[in-house]
Amino acid sequence: MRGFRRCLGPLLALLVAFAPARRGAAAQTTPPAPLLGFDTEGAAAERALEATFDAALDPSEQRAWMKRLTARPHHVGSPYDRENAGFLVSLFGSFGFETRIEEFTVLFPVPKTRVLEMVAPSPFTASLAEPALSEDATSGQKDEQLPVYNAYSIDGDVTAEVVYVNYGVPKDYEELERRGVDVKGKIVLARYGGSWRGIKPKVAFEHGAVGCLIYSDPRDDGYFQGDTYPTGAFRNESGAQRGSVADMPVFPGDPLTPGVGATKDAKRLDRKDAPTLTKIPVLPLSWTDALPFLKALSGPVAPEAWRGALPVTYHVGPGPAKAHLKLAFDWRMEPVRDVLAVLKGSELPDEWILRGNHYDAWVNGAQDPISGLVAELSEAKALGALARAGWKPRRTIVYAAWDGEEPGLIGSTEWVETHAEDLSKKAVAYVNTDSNGRGFLGAAGSHTLERFVDEVARDVVDPETNVSIAERQRAGRLVRGSTESKKEAKEHPGLRLEALGSGSDYSPFLQHLGIASLNLGFGGESAGGSYHSAYDSFDHFSRFIDPEFAYGVTLSKTAGRVVLRLANAGSLPFTFDPLAETVARYAKEVGTLADELREKTDDDNRNIAAKSWELAADPKETFVAPKPKAGVPFLNFAPLQNAVAALKKSAARYDKAEKERRPPRTTGARKALDEALYTTERALTRKEGLPLRPWYVHQLYAPGLYTGYGVKTLPGIREAIEERRFDEAQRQIAAAAEAIEACAARIDAATAALTSAPAG
Amino acid sequence: MRGFRRCLGPLLALLVAFAPARRGAAAQTTPPAPLLGFDTEGAAAERALEATFDAALDPSEQRAWMKRLTARPHHVGSPYDRENAGFLVSLFGSFGFETRIEEFTVLFPVPKTRVLEMVAPSPFTASLAEPALSEDATSGQKDEQLPVYNAYSIDGDVTAEVVYVNYGVPKDYEELERRGVDVKGKIVLARYGGSWRGIKPKVAFEHGAVGCLIYSDPRDDGYFQGDTYPTGAFRNESGAQRGSVADMPVFPGDPLTPGVGATKDAKRLDRKDAPTLTKIPVLPLSWTDALPFLKALSGPVAPEAWRGALPVTYHVGPGPAKAHLKLAFDWRMEPVRDVLAVLKGSELPDEWILRGNHYDAWVNGAQDPISGLVAELSEAKALGALARAGWKPRRTIVYAAWDGEEPGLIGSTEWVETHAEDLSKKAVAYVNTDSNGRGFLGAAGSHTLERFVDEVARDVVDPETNVSIAERQRAGRLVRGSTESKKEAKEHPGLRLEALGSGSDYSPFLQHLGIASLNLGFGGESAGGSYHSAYDSFDHFSRFIDPEFAYGVTLSKTAGRVVLRLANAGSLPFTFDPLAETVARYAKEVGTLADELREKTDDDNRNIAAKSWELAADPKETFVAPKPKAGVPFLNFAPLQNAVAALKKSAARYDKAEKERRPPRTTGARKALDEALYTTERALTRKEGLPLRPWYVHQLYAPGLYTGYGVKTLPGIREAIEERRFDEAQRQIAAAAEAIEACAARIDAATAALTSAPAG
Repeated sequence: MRGFRRCLGPLLALLVAFAPARRGAAAQTTPPAPLLGFDTEGAAAERALEATFDAALDPSEQRAWMKRLTARPHHVGSPYDRENAGFLVSLFGSFGFETRIEEFTVLFPVPKTRVLEMVAPSPFTASLAEPALSEDATSGQKDEQLPVYNAYSIDGDVTAEVVYVNYGVPKDYEELERRGVDVKGKIVLARYGGSWRGIKPKVAFEHGAVGCLIYSDPRDDGYFQGDTYPTGAFRNESGAQRGSVADMPVFPGDPLTPGVGATKDAKRLDRKDAPTLTKIPVLPLSWTDALPFLKALSGPVAPEAWRGALPVTYHVGPGPAKAHLKLAFDWRMEPVRDVLAVLKGSELPDEWILRGNHYDAWVNGAQDPISGLVAELSEAKALGALARAGWKPRRTIVYAAWDGEEPGLIGSTEWVETHAEDLSKKAVAYVNTDSNGRGFLGAAGSHTLERFVDEVARDVVDPETNVSIAERQRAGRLVRGSTESKKEAKEHPGLRLEALGSGSDYSPFLQHLGIASLNLGFGGESAGGSYHSAYDSFDHFSRFIDPEFAYGVTLSKTAGRVVLRLANAGSLPFTFDPLAETVARYAKEVGTLADELREKTDDDNRNIAAKSWELAADPKETFVAPKPKAGVPFLNFAPLQNAVAALKKSAARYDKAEKERRPPRTTGARKALDEALYTTERALTRKEGLPLRPWYVHQLYAPGLYTGYGVKTLPGIREAIEERRFDEAQRQIAAAAEAIEACAARIDAATAALTSAPAG
Repeated sequence: MRGFRRCLGPLLALLVAFAPARRGAAAQTTPPAPLLGFDTEGAAAERALEATFDAALDPSEQRAWMKRLTARPHHVGSPYDRENAGFLVSLFGSFGFETRIEEFTVLFPVPKTRVLEMVAPSPFTASLAEPALSEDATSGQKDEQLPVYNAYSIDGDVTAEVVYVNYGVPKDYEELERRGVDVKGKIVLARYGGSWRGIKPKVAFEHGAVGCLIYSDPRDDGYFQGDTYPTGAFRNESGAQRGSVADMPVFPGDPLTPGVGATKDAKRLDRKDAPTLTKIPVLPLSWTDALPFLKALSGPVAPEAWRGALPVTYHVGPGPAKAHLKLAFDWRMEPVRDVLAVLKGSELPDEWILRGNHYDAWVNGAQDPISGLVAELSEAKALGALARAGWKPRRTIVYAAWDGEEPGLIGSTEWVETHAEDLSKKAVAYVNTDSNGRGFLGAAGSHTLERFVDEVARDVVDPETNVSIAERQRAGRLVRGSTESKKEAKEHPGLRLEALGSGSDYSPFLQHLGIASLNLGFGGESAGGSYHSAYDSFDHFSRFIDPEFAYGVTLSKTAGRVVLRLANAGSLPFTFDPLAETVARYAKEVGTLADELREKTDDDNRNIAAKSWELAADPKETFVAPKPKAGVPFLNFAPLQNAVAALKKSAARYDKAEKERRPPRTTGARKALDEALYTTERALTRKEGLPLRPWYVHQLYAPGLYTGYGVKTLPGIREAIEERRFDEAQRQIAAAAEAIEACAARIDAATAALTSAPAG
């Protein structure tokens, strides 16, 4: 890559001459800017710069980095995790970034004892092991591998009858209740899926269970989906899914330091008081280890939707299958080392464009997380090359490689908590990636950035089809998926950002500080089942996921453009029409939710009164009719509706101004405008946070308290309605409305900053 | 039961004095008749009579009859089928009916050779056997059992690669085409379900396949559903489903005598010209026999909806699994003996109330068909007792036990074809039952009888809940099933009749002659998998299906009331509002179907032009984009809409007249009214029949040409639209409109007969 810099250096210098920083030279009538935040010349220069950037991206480098980073298991606290930190910091340094490692000390339990036996009706001992495969070079590194376990399960030694609880989410327990099955004092056997795994032990405990087993059913994750490893990419009979079961919808990060950075001297909770540790022991299983229990269960046949792909009749129990589960952990305090790499902004150094991907894994972690990390490394290297050739970002670029994501977004969360004050002031946006695959762009994030991401996606070429990744994604939406999503794709040609729940390092930025965030990746053609197993290896990835690293490079182009444009733009490319439209949709949804819940409640109560449930029940089977519920009152949605109307108006005003006006001329005025723009996202937070979980302050997006990964939009209102806390729902309507009004006011401030300052 | 007659004889005589035949005595103002077709006193007498009828129904008799009738295999042509015919005719005779056997001679092939082997990639020979079980007393009667086979498969000896085709219906072949998989020259492996089995070889042949295997996947019929036999009721690993694969949606009955009775001297087709025999050899399998083929298939992974519950990754092939299928049949001509039993009508002997259930089985046939037959026998016995006690039906009652239903509704079809002229004139209605189970009333049939059946269902008590079977059914609809069906149950408290497709002996009555028909039975709590297997035995039925024969008796009460009321009513209880409402719904549906097909075609063509399919395809997998299709023209639905409007008006006029007027006084006038009423169903037929299948003449109901069991309502229009024959759709709109107008005219004739004659 040395040759690249030599050849393109002079060209770059030329391009930089036309870069946004220079375009304020003369007020003149120009056609509408073809790139958000850039004028015509600026856009041309930016695109030329991006072409140079693209040319520096090298798939064979990504391959080599992946091979290096996944050569040994590299979980938190492991020798190779430390080695990787060193490797990364020197790599970023070699690219020309200012680097540093920030270290935190966090609770990270590893198993001492793992015993699962069936003690009735016949003996069986679970192997709890993923065997080495000759086709997978790293699968036999037993000395360094973490065994199959769920982090932040408590210690425990329980023996009890087993109950199969499907995904183990609240509605599954309602089904059990209908069948007269109680999990009190039992060990629940749940299958992975349907929620984030940490929800399962939480809900099981709330229903009185004393232990929780979570297995990978081949229906969701195994041979039902496709050929299994090593023949194909899917989870085999011994594959099990490690993972954290801390109660992250309450707060992520180190369980002992909620809300503050886990620095050496931080005040820590006593472990017994740590609220996010599970209340019962939890263990993940392969289906081979789960099958004997499922075979031995009797009791009611499981509802149809509960049945997996194992060749048995799924019964719910309880028993006669009886399990003995014994777990003991070494409750270690381990270092978590975040790698930070900075390219300082030339004009607006206190506006930070943040870009991150974690580097810790459960085992060798080729796809999760190294596939995303190597894309980030390519970007950093290419940015470094641009910088060496003379380009200067107007704003500061911060590249991060997070440690400790797997146990609970720890590295990012502790860093965000530590630097909360600075970040609140300076962070423009956070761009996250994680596991990457092959196929279609997946883009989720703040709707203030929706149009911007759409624009980026139109400029990146899909390596398989040579159309833009935006066009390819739309083609996928047009011919696949539900009728509804097809209709949406037909009527709305633009890219849509999904809302962010949780599951990767964007969560603290977006949901704890209100920093506009994005999560980007590719998928849809690289399905497999290596997730959190010893088989998420270089061999697996390079055979099945993205063998040519073509989508690794495409991800670099995509995330790299996002970073470059955010760093270079004359004014920040935030727009608000998509936000207003999206919030209006959410507002309509929560209204409909209340209406439908009211109708359903009335129907249910009528059916209960008419004994329709009892009449419809088979008297040969146990059936417990549901109990009547209080009716759903009509809520006053007017504050929300008025706030949405205000947001729409503010968005339209800014949109008009942005189209008509060029950005302000002076750095001071530009800074004022930028600040008004990026703090629109801050305005969507409330310092009180959400009910039951003050750590989460964003009023539009949060992971569901009972879904985990899955987003709840307008979460305060939505969850209060879902959980039938109607007084709270009314209060949350007011709270969300207040935040939306505040956001509208920030947008108005941006409009004022744009229109009052002399144009550039 | 002797005691019963002695005690109730005098009471009965009293009741009969108030029976409908007597109620014309004096013109007077009465409150609205509480039973359709009866005045107040008539209704009271009828209900009293029904109480007596109910009291004569004895579950232990049904049990004994079932045990007797299922003691040995009794398929067409078997010694025990002949014995059962004799037993039944003597039983009906002993009840006091005039009896006769009508015999037909029909083509009935039985296997001589059945070989299925896998010849690549590894050898396997299918067992094609259902082993004897010690828990099932009749399962070991190997000498008399028909082996596992599909009747009316042709002979064949083919060796070819295998392709898995899911259910083997037309849309499955579209999916294969998208994946570049062609079945030309291949043997298809289809799973049971998704259509009537005979559709599978027909569609396979149309796509060039040379052989067809049909297996029972445990997803649809086996351990996925529940515990397998003998532990539970569901199909076990060796259970296979026999059954006919003749092309019955073209015509049912003897394949050699379409449209005419298969009497001794009937003109017969040469077997090689018989259009309903399959064109390729067909064999049913257990999943144990199918699994080696599924395991050995490679090629694309089957679409998710295609995947069953076997512990394999479902691939579609073709190959490398290669099958050798060799079938040879003994093409016998066998007797089919219908048992007929008549109670002659006292006043209107030329109005026939027909009631039937078949008695032939594939093997021992406890549920199918003996569970329905023993209910029918109980009715006949109870009616005979009433008759002996002095009751006389005003109209003639004909009880039938059909032979040869299993191979293709042969006994009923040949009888209907033989007596078509008489039946066209005299048949009021046909009431069918077949397999019966436990749970909820299932009622399907002519909508001219919907309100009548609703009334009957309100008067029959459910044995498990002690509410009426109508109320219980509604409770089930209110709390189970789809949102749509719940909504429908909430808004429409009355019972709905499902439309009749095919699958039992009502088909020739309704669809070949236009005789108003019903099919009644209970189910929903007696799921199992004995259908058409050697395990459909007395042991299976009495353990799992209806152990107390409580629903056998309830079926007798239901069907018996239908017969009794039809036979006794002052005027026939046909009403037309439900018909008009239903036809209006169908008319709306076919309009929507055309609109949706137009929109879908336009969308598809747009996506094809934009290459969205290609862009969305994974280049690592074969993908063949669909071809553009001609757009869907706007059709003139006005004739249909006008006909529906006319039907609604006529229905409302009759409804008003029926409420205001008492039936005519004289037998002649009553006969004229009755005839106008029951020939409303004849008016819904057209002698030209449906496109491609003139045997089917009903314009509202037919089995789908490509669904088999599944009904197509307004079939001429609907199938023409579905199959994109739009000119024909336009002609069929006119044809259906004409029939509906003719029906409206018959209703007007009934109104005239009711209003012009002196009231009774």
